[in-house]
Amino acid sequence: MNAPEQLFASVNALPDVQSHADHRQLAIQRVGVKSLVHPVMIQTTTGPQPSVATVDMTVSLPPEIKGTHMSRFLEVFQTHQDPLSYHALQSLMNAMLVRLESQQGYIKIAVPYFVRKSAPVSGVESLMDYQVTLECEELQNQRLTTFTVVVPVTSLCPCSKKISEYGAHNQRSHVTIAAQIEGPVEIEELITVAERAASCELWGLLKRPDEKYVTERAYDNPKFVEDLVRDIALALSQDRRIKGYSVESENFESIHNHSAYAKIDHLHYS
Amino acid sequence: MNAPEQLFASVNALPDVQSHADHRQLAIQRVGVKSLVHPVMIQTTTGPQPSVATVDMTVSLPPEIKGTHMSRFLEVFQTHQDPLSYHALQSLMNAMLVRLESQQGYIKIAVPYFVRKSAPVSGVESLMDYQVTLECEELQNQRLTTFTVVVPVTSLCPCSKKISEYGAHNQRSHVTIAAQIEGPVEIEELITVAERAASCELWGLLKRPDEKYVTERAYDNPKFVEDLVRDIALALSQDRRIKGYSVESENFESIHNHSAYAKIDHLHYS
Amino acid sequence: MNAPEQLFASVNALPDVQSHADHRQLAIQRVGVKSLVHPVMIQTTTGPQPSVATVDMTVSLPPEIKGTHMSRFLEVFQTHQDPLSYHALQSLMNAMLVRLESQQGYIKIAVPYFVRKSAPVSGVESLMDYQVTLECEELQNQRLTTFTVVVPVTSLCPCSKKISEYGAHNQRSHVTIAAQIEGPVEIEELITVAERAASCELWGLLKRPDEKYVTERAYDNPKFVEDLVRDIALALSQDRRIKGYSVESENFESIHNHSAYAKIDHLHYS
Amino acid sequence: MNAPEQLFASVNALPDVQSHADHRQLAIQRVGVKSLVHPVMIQTTTGPQPSVATVDMTVSLPPEIKGTHMSRFLEVFQTHQDPLSYHALQSLMNAMLVRLESQQGYIKIAVPYFVRKSAPVSGVESLMDYQVTLECEELQNQRLTTFTVVVPVTSLCPCSKKISEYGAHNQRSHVTIAAQIEGPVEIEELITVAERAASCELWGLLKRPDEKYVTERAYDNPKFVEDLVRDIALALSQDRRIKGYSVESENFESIHNHSAYAKIDHLHYS
Repeated sequence: MNAPEQLFASVNALPDVQSHADHRQLAIQRVGVKSLVHPVMIQTTTGPQPSVATVDMTVSLPPEIKGTHMSRFLEVFQTHQDPLSYHALQSLMNAMLVRLESQQGYIKIAVPYFVRKSAPVSGVESLMDYQVTLECEELQNQRLTTFTVVVPVTSLCPCSKKISEYGAHNQRSHVTIAAQIEGPVEIEELITVAERAASCELWGLLKRPDEKYVTERAYDNPKFVEDLVRDIALALSQDRRIKGYSVESENFESIHNHSAYAKIDHLHYS
Repeated sequence: MNAPEQLFASVNALPDVQSHADHRQLAIQRVGVKSLVHPVMIQTTTGPQPSVATVDMTVSLPPEIKGTHMSRFLEVFQTHQDPLSYHALQSLMNAMLVRLESQQGYIKIAVPYFVRKSAPVSGVESLMDYQVTLECEELQNQRLTTFTVVVPVTSLCPCSKKISEYGAHNQRSHVTIAAQIEGPVEIEELITVAERAASCELWGLLKRPDEKYVTERAYDNPKFVEDLVRDIALALSQDRRIKGYSVESENFESIHNHSAYAKIDHLHYS
Repeated sequence: MNAPEQLFASVNALPDVQSHADHRQLAIQRVGVKSLVHPVMIQTTTGPQPSVATVDMTVSLPPEIKGTHMSRFLEVFQTHQDPLSYHALQSLMNAMLVRLESQQGYIKIAVPYFVRKSAPVSGVESLMDYQVTLECEELQNQRLTTFTVVVPVTSLCPCSKKISEYGAHNQRSHVTIAAQIEGPVEIEELITVAERAASCELWGLLKRPDEKYVTERAYDNPKFVEDLVRDIALALSQDRRIKGYSVESENFESIHNHSAYAKIDHLHYS
Repeated sequence: MNAPEQLFASVNALPDVQSHADHRQLAIQRVGVKSLVHPVMIQTTTGPQPSVATVDMTVSLPPEIKGTHMSRFLEVFQTHQDPLSYHALQSLMNAMLVRLESQQGYIKIAVPYFVRKSAPVSGVESLMDYQVTLECEELQNQRLTTFTVVVPVTSLCPCSKKISEYGAHNQRSHVTIAAQIEGPVEIEELITVAERAASCELWGLLKRPDEKYVTERAYDNPKFVEDLVRDIALALSQDRRIKGYSVESENFESIHNHSAYAKIDHLHYS
């Protein structure tokens, strides 16, 4: 009722500044919307999971066009509500390129992601949250899809353990894995790679016997920030589905007010 | 299977340091967990809506007890998965106080919250996101429940309009309403109060006739940061369900790199 | 040179919307500027220190006045460039109240703050950074000055130490002390109170013998989040210059992805 | 005094785990410290300016070495306190590579940066703050230096102006210029390029005649996000000192709760 015949007449009568010709002869690689907050479903190994996404969607703009049509990005996004997965992301990219009449595009969707885990001794269940980013870039008929996970873990310092009579400083670390893929890879698989390489993984809920377990496990398994990224890089490099990867670890040192940091970068850049 | 008889024997054998007596004779008003990220459902006027919450849960600790039991907060939270509402929040508070054996407690749950809106002329639908915080505090048998909404709006400067031959600077502003309540109030009602007082409300998706409408509407309706908080305070003070309130507006000035800010505070402090 | 006679004629000719009468009969407790970023000097025990402040400055507005004069806040701030101290803050408040013609006002200045420290064994020197906030509120002829420090420290879990054969989980924690004062108190004094109560304090630069020291010191000195706030509250309550205080600790648990948190609140609320 | 002969004996006696051989045969591109907060001086056109930096410093680590020596980064940084400039950054890089015995390295220093500006009509002076990042990367004997500025400006929508009877939505935008350089370029020059391309630049302090000026100036000078990046790209591409550049604009739309965004990327990637 808000959009009668009269409206469409009026729409057509309004000048369309964005479609004007542009005389600077400069292509724009990315133009669109950024930091759109929207509810989404994500595909997990145990079914679709609701989450809240922060979304960037852009296309390239040829030199002769003055502006893109911003409202179309929203239209595309809100009509593609399949649970987010490798394939759903490709489909969203295809729809965006068609609707925006562009050959090149970039989509980035960041979501909190949850995995139900059982505590290592008591078996009590709880959710762990991870920050996950799904990216897709179409560039000169080449498509690059990247899944990134930020995995919080425990790191325990080998040097501190070695030189001290007792104890060892440990801390929360953020391991970030970016994996360039050409087909489906489960987010949980990337999380598992990071957690296995850590001094110890984290859980939402731990009972006392679990706390004893994780304390001793971390002490038995000291890791420098360098060890973390190397062990993870080894694992990722052996997965044929992963075409390129980077792995970072930021250790929020418990003995300093800055971080220890390492990165191995084997990404293919476009 | 991870928690056999043997485990419980071992749990009981582990020392329980937190239950020891404490000799400093100092009560702690709030002790518990902070910044827990967890999926939730929220009750809206059109049914339950999935979101992702950031949760703080604390209880008070009497002088003679050394420590609280941190894992119980998680247990309470993850077993109370009713869609968040005024009543569900009370029920969560009751459960926490019982499980933590405390007389006083505080719960704070922050969530992105979505409202489906129709654009003002074209009628196209899209979601707008708002930051919502639900708080509940039990203090000496008095319970205080507070719903807070951050509502992004347009503000257009009356001074700029008045002194300029044409145009007027305008910008995105964040209106924050905190309402102390003793019974259910819909979050959408608070959002509507803020949006009505603004130079113009925001939408996710606007077509050109809508953009013309919102531009002219804002220009017809200039508001200082002071006007925003006063108009909203007037509306809130007339709602008998609201026992206390504060209203703030932060205008991210388009002509400065700092904000214009105003606050009217009629909250009851505990 | 940019402001000749002609200008002032023109200034006076421009309508002054903010000075109009207002008919809603609602006082505003706080109106002014927020999130102004500005270089400052801070007074320390070893002399003035340059830093970068984020500044909020507001006054109250009586019911009959439509708006405040935003540009005056900047004028006041940039002409009061004495190194920030208890007394400089009082002087800034006085100047703001006079210039804005108000009886009530609030100033909040947040700065990174640095202390030169010697490592515990090697004696090598480095700077530690702390987040410091200076607040001053004038309310019905009563003035409340509050200094807040966020002190990053190491906390080592007593329960983890007790129940484990070896090791103990530890992590970076943020201890926040807010002290209400009526005369000068050195920021370093508040920092020292927090650092003494921790399992161990932090340094920017540690050599291996220092790392051995801090590892063993933390293990010898386990502290729950509850212990931290109680030990600090005891110390603060014995300082007669401190009229009211709160102390919080947020432990960024190395075994979870959420924080353990405690707060003791003995602030006087206005 | 804290480091007598005895200490050095003890230092040498402590095992040096980081210097052990590593058997995974994986080089690490970047390892070092991240998010170090430290006071600095920055060179400006009007002399050295104090600020507070957030610093990342990393080197590459060959496959056969187990770990880097984290404390050396701090030592290097705190002994190189020349005002930050193109040349000081090169000198810091040289010192780091020598001290860390590495062929490759990366330094990133982010600082708030201030420029004293005169209001356009009244001439009143105030400071504007900008976020500036200085980066230097040494990679296979090729060095890449990048200066990045984030410049807050006003953007006014040409479409909104064209289709509306009166008014036009405008907002604060962040223009980000990254310039790859091989010799000194003044940060103020990059800021000026961004401000000239905007609908209007920002000031800390504006009097009423200034506010009239900036309102009318923005209305006379509407710019899409696409126009902003194109006009700036044109200017940057004509500066022979700039070997590569990217320019982004994020417009914090006053009519939406998301941003309009555009990027032109002519950076040389290593």
